[in-house]
Amino acid sequence: MTVMLEGRPVARAILDQARDDITGFVTQLGLLPSLAVVNTGNEPSALAYARAIARTAKSVGIPFLRIDLPAAVTIDEFDAAIEQLNQDETVAGIIVLQPLPPQIPKSRPSEIVAPAKDIDGMTLVNIGLLAAGTATLVPSTPAGGVEILHHYQIPIAGKYVVIVGRSLVVGKPLAMMLLAEDATVTLCHSRTPNLKEFTRNADIVALAAGKPGLLTEDMVGPTSVVLDFGVTMVDGSMTGDADPTVAKAVAAFTPVPGGTGIVTNAILVRNIVAAIRGSIC
Amino acid sequence: MTVMLEGRPVARAILDQARDDITGFVTQLGLLPSLAVVNTGNEPSALAYARAIARTAKSVGIPFLRIDLPAAVTIDEFDAAIEQLNQDETVAGIIVLQPLPPQIPKSRPSEIVAPAKDIDGMTLVNIGLLAAGTATLVPSTPAGGVEILHHYQIPIAGKYVVIVGRSLVVGKPLAMMLLAEDATVTLCHSRTPNLKEFTRNADIVALAAGKPGLLTEDMVGPTSVVLDFGVTMVDGSMTGDADPTVAKAVAAFTPVPGGTGIVTNAILVRNIVAAIRGSIC
Repeated sequence: MTVMLEGRPVARAILDQARDDITGFVTQLGLLPSLAVVNTGNEPSALAYARAIARTAKSVGIPFLRIDLPAAVTIDEFDAAIEQLNQDETVAGIIVLQPLPPQIPKSRPSEIVAPAKDIDGMTLVNIGLLAAGTATLVPSTPAGGVEILHHYQIPIAGKYVVIVGRSLVVGKPLAMMLLAEDATVTLCHSRTPNLKEFTRNADIVALAAGKPGLLTEDMVGPTSVVLDFGVTMVDGSMTGDADPTVAKAVAAFTPVPGGTGIVTNAILVRNIVAAIRGSIC
Repeated sequence: MTVMLEGRPVARAILDQARDDITGFVTQLGLLPSLAVVNTGNEPSALAYARAIARTAKSVGIPFLRIDLPAAVTIDEFDAAIEQLNQDETVAGIIVLQPLPPQIPKSRPSEIVAPAKDIDGMTLVNIGLLAAGTATLVPSTPAGGVEILHHYQIPIAGKYVVIVGRSLVVGKPLAMMLLAEDATVTLCHSRTPNLKEFTRNADIVALAAGKPGLLTEDMVGPTSVVLDFGVTMVDGSMTGDADPTVAKAVAAFTPVPGGTGIVTNAILVRNIVAAIRGSIC
């Protein structure tokens, strides 16, 4: 029988732990440092994401601060705004919303956000620490997938994981996390000629390609575990990378929506807790 | 017929290009900035490596500077010595020799050497840039292996590469480099239960485990290409990870010694050239 790896209980467990930690911080500090979200311009998707983060932060009692920069902000002004947050002791975590206006390179935040406040785990230093196996602040989406495996007690050590997608936000960091837990890991992508030969042999298939219907039932087996990170809107519905037929063909899978996505925000909160802890020490 | 992928012509091509570039820099600058090698204490292996680097640097006309710190150096003194080199405009590249004395964390150089002078490509920022696909200064050993593939016109895009060994100096950066060239990449290691099933299916097998005899002829096929990064002293001889029987069983392989190791130092020189170019711009 197929097990549905629902994200909600995983997120709940992480958030419960975070609330406990935060209660401890309040007792210790009196006042908590804030999570700062930097928004540039008026991109609706960015503003919606900011609201979602604000809700999550408030639900666990973390003060939330939104900094709005004009769409015409210069690089120097942008850098100065980030540097001010880097220096501000009342700010524990910083998230810079994408997309940025064209005059600000997309990679700029990864170079200038203080690694100790990098809640998204996307700075170059934190990517390096993840590869070195010593990261504290890790990218939330892949870390959420790993937490799902832990929560449902799916073994990782010695297992074979095939990751489809090599992005810097999911595929590559997920590979580093699973390698650190002694999995053997293959990174496949759009230029892999024979994807099915890889996925069929995997104990765990992680999908992070953003291509609905990419994984079909003939590409998996009855013992496969599928982690679906795909998030594509199809006819108004959020759709993963696994074809619906996959659900019945495997041992376990994460639904979309309701799987990995829900855990992502919880990891963000766990990262804030880690950043606050770091700022106290 | 098996092709022996000798490192010497690859290194020669890289060094010839470096000499041309350096001649150009001398014309432009008059005086070249130096390569600084930081040595701590009196470890014979470190001193031997320093001499090898000095020879290579001098052979292409790059001024060489050795900084010797006492074995009892404190972290503050160590940091100050590196910071001085970071700031010194007459220094283009910095290499910190391992092993470091116990009071200096092994990872310290990766945190404090200026990324723009990080000839070894081992700072956290440069590891992050490599994962992002935008690194200029890259770890020399895996980059040397990639150059061998380029030099002998062995296709990478769309091919399947199995890497044995997940170290931060070879296995992981090699995976990032080959992914960037559109290979499908598996990282295997000591906890991979069925190594042979991976290596037999690979177009290219990269060995970076430091275990002589790890790869045997039954684990490869007549079209396999083997890159051997293993360097272990066995009865006074430098020995790779491939068993001698592998040589006749595959399409092409790098000998040990005489293969990947020779190219490593040439990449170091190419990195110095890149650092000097960066310091001019």
